[in-house]
Amino acid sequence: MQLSKQQAEQRTDQVYDVLVVGGGPAGLSAGIYLQRYLLSTLIVDKGKARSLWMQEMHNYLGLPPDSSGRDLLKQGKAHYLSLDGDYLNAFVEEATDEGETFALRVRIGRNNPSYVTLRSRYLIAASGIIDNLPTFTDMQNVYDYAGYNLHVCLICDGYEMQGQRVGVFGRNEGSLEVAFSLGWFTSDITLFTGGAFDVSDGFRDRLRTHGYRLEERPLHRFVGENHIMSGVELRDGTLIPLDAGLVSMGSKYHADYLNGIDLEYKGGNLVTDGMNRTSHPRIFAVGDLKVGLNQVIVAAADGALAATQIWRDIRRQEGSRAPAKQSAA
Amino acid sequence: MQLSKQQAEQRTDQVYDVLVVGGGPAGLSAGIYLQRYLLSTLIVDKGKARSLWMQEMHNYLGLPPDSSGRDLLKQGKAHYLSLDGDYLNAFVEEATDEGETFALRVRIGRNNPSYVTLRSRYLIAASGIIDNLPTFTDMQNVYDYAGYNLHVCLICDGYEMQGQRVGVFGRNEGSLEVAFSLGWFTSDITLFTGGAFDVSDGFRDRLRTHGYRLEERPLHRFVGENHIMSGVELRDGTLIPLDAGLVSMGSKYHADYLNGIDLEYKGGNLVTDGMNRTSHPRIFAVGDLKVGLNQVIVAAADGALAATQIWRDIRRQEGSRAPAKQSAA
Repeated sequence: MQLSKQQAEQRTDQVYDVLVVGGGPAGLSAGIYLQRYLLSTLIVDKGKARSLWMQEMHNYLGLPPDSSGRDLLKQGKAHYLSLDGDYLNAFVEEATDEGETFALRVRIGRNNPSYVTLRSRYLIAASGIIDNLPTFTDMQNVYDYAGYNLHVCLICDGYEMQGQRVGVFGRNEGSLEVAFSLGWFTSDITLFTGGAFDVSDGFRDRLRTHGYRLEERPLHRFVGENHIMSGVELRDGTLIPLDAGLVSMGSKYHADYLNGIDLEYKGGNLVTDGMNRTSHPRIFAVGDLKVGLNQVIVAAADGALAATQIWRDIRRQEGSRAPAKQSAA
Repeated sequence: MQLSKQQAEQRTDQVYDVLVVGGGPAGLSAGIYLQRYLLSTLIVDKGKARSLWMQEMHNYLGLPPDSSGRDLLKQGKAHYLSLDGDYLNAFVEEATDEGETFALRVRIGRNNPSYVTLRSRYLIAASGIIDNLPTFTDMQNVYDYAGYNLHVCLICDGYEMQGQRVGVFGRNEGSLEVAFSLGWFTSDITLFTGGAFDVSDGFRDRLRTHGYRLEERPLHRFVGENHIMSGVELRDGTLIPLDAGLVSMGSKYHADYLNGIDLEYKGGNLVTDGMNRTSHPRIFAVGDLKVGLNQVIVAAADGALAATQIWRDIRRQEGSRAPAKQSAA
């Protein structure tokens, strides 16, 4: 059930089998599998899943190619709730390993927040990442286009950028490397530094070889209408027309609550085994937070794998959760 | 496009980037990703995907829990064809590694079949498995219930079997081990050997400990109506009432066409790396054919991973497939 603050406070004396941090595709898929394994589950979601940006998911098997991330999450949440899983809108501040259980300190509400501590035997980190965006004075100008034709994922949207005039927005030379992969789909590429960093002579040579442009002047804003970005206006007033943008400015990893637990990372991503178990035997990581391909369909499979392994673990310990035996016929 | 026999014959002088053997969830997901990576793809499908049995997929994120496997495949195939992928109804008899390319000998049609040889740079084995079923004199009697409440997948349908009277149909003692996992969901379990094999004293002791019954008399047929099996009739006329069945008789692996190529297997499954590459650098395996969890959502992710790795490979070799550059604005 969808838990109110009061209901969450009543859950503080129980131990869930699994707490799932994050109600995106990975967390919801895990929750669906867990509940179907008869494991008690609570998903804690802070909102703002990366997939909420996705106006159209073009590559998710089983859904029409104009399905939105929002619709996927809505369907997945209803599915999970229909299996009697608990769901709480809240922010996980800190996870503590108590040995047999984890204690999660959770903040509910933004203004006048209240705090509860919830416990579980296993933890699934499905809290994902969020892409850094260009920082303009008017951030609404950025949000107007992000997820429409201001893309953050080459794999997801390269196909749509075929032959288009595409601007790549980076935060350092390394982040601009994506332009060479984008070159698979289009050769009309302009790289924007916003004047925020310098690039090496070697990099400039490579751009020249590929025929890509480098624009180092500071940026002012995107132009366009109805969520369709049609170019970038520089601070000096120059307008650079574009058909699409690709933001490659790194990501924020939503994993601060794990800081007190020793886990193996690679970059910002959690290292996991084939069933998505981290270096901690009772913590799993799924979706964008783990090392791997950041795709919705992969995140959904991640959730299934983690849930299945947790079921195997608990089943080996407990044996059965069958209802009391009926009289034999 | 959906290829006719004549159109397939016209494709014999081209080299596809990727041939995908099997149009189930893994193959279709791969095809969708491949076409979106601008890689030319042909899916060869013989029909009879395992997922066609699935009357209701209860655990696929994004789809209502009463969605059928058939509907998923239909949507996926339409999605793939909308991206201009080629699709051929045919049976792959043999794959030959020619060094730079694979040659696939393909049989089209059942009566008066014709044969064509099609070529590709990469091969994705997505041809899956099919579950062995009890062999009764009247096989239609088995097909009437398989995929309804005669299940083949504990992970998929354990939840539905909670507290039910479930019959487990095995082909040897090892295959009956699934009963102890089924015990998570129900304690009313009858194991059927059909009189076809013996079980050890140690196994009998374990069954007694768990309170499971062992039925060793030969089976005659399932009873029930409207695809809902309500019990098993033994050859001696005894009727054993059941609410559901779980078939655990192993699987047939659809991989004969790979016999001429040296690949690493584990049991009948192909061994792959994290991106689903087999021990052959240009052959990938996805879905039930590879080592891993046999779940539709995992198969769909498998396809995405294999397609992405093949794109990376080809992109590194070729650099670009961008359309001719437009005049700069």
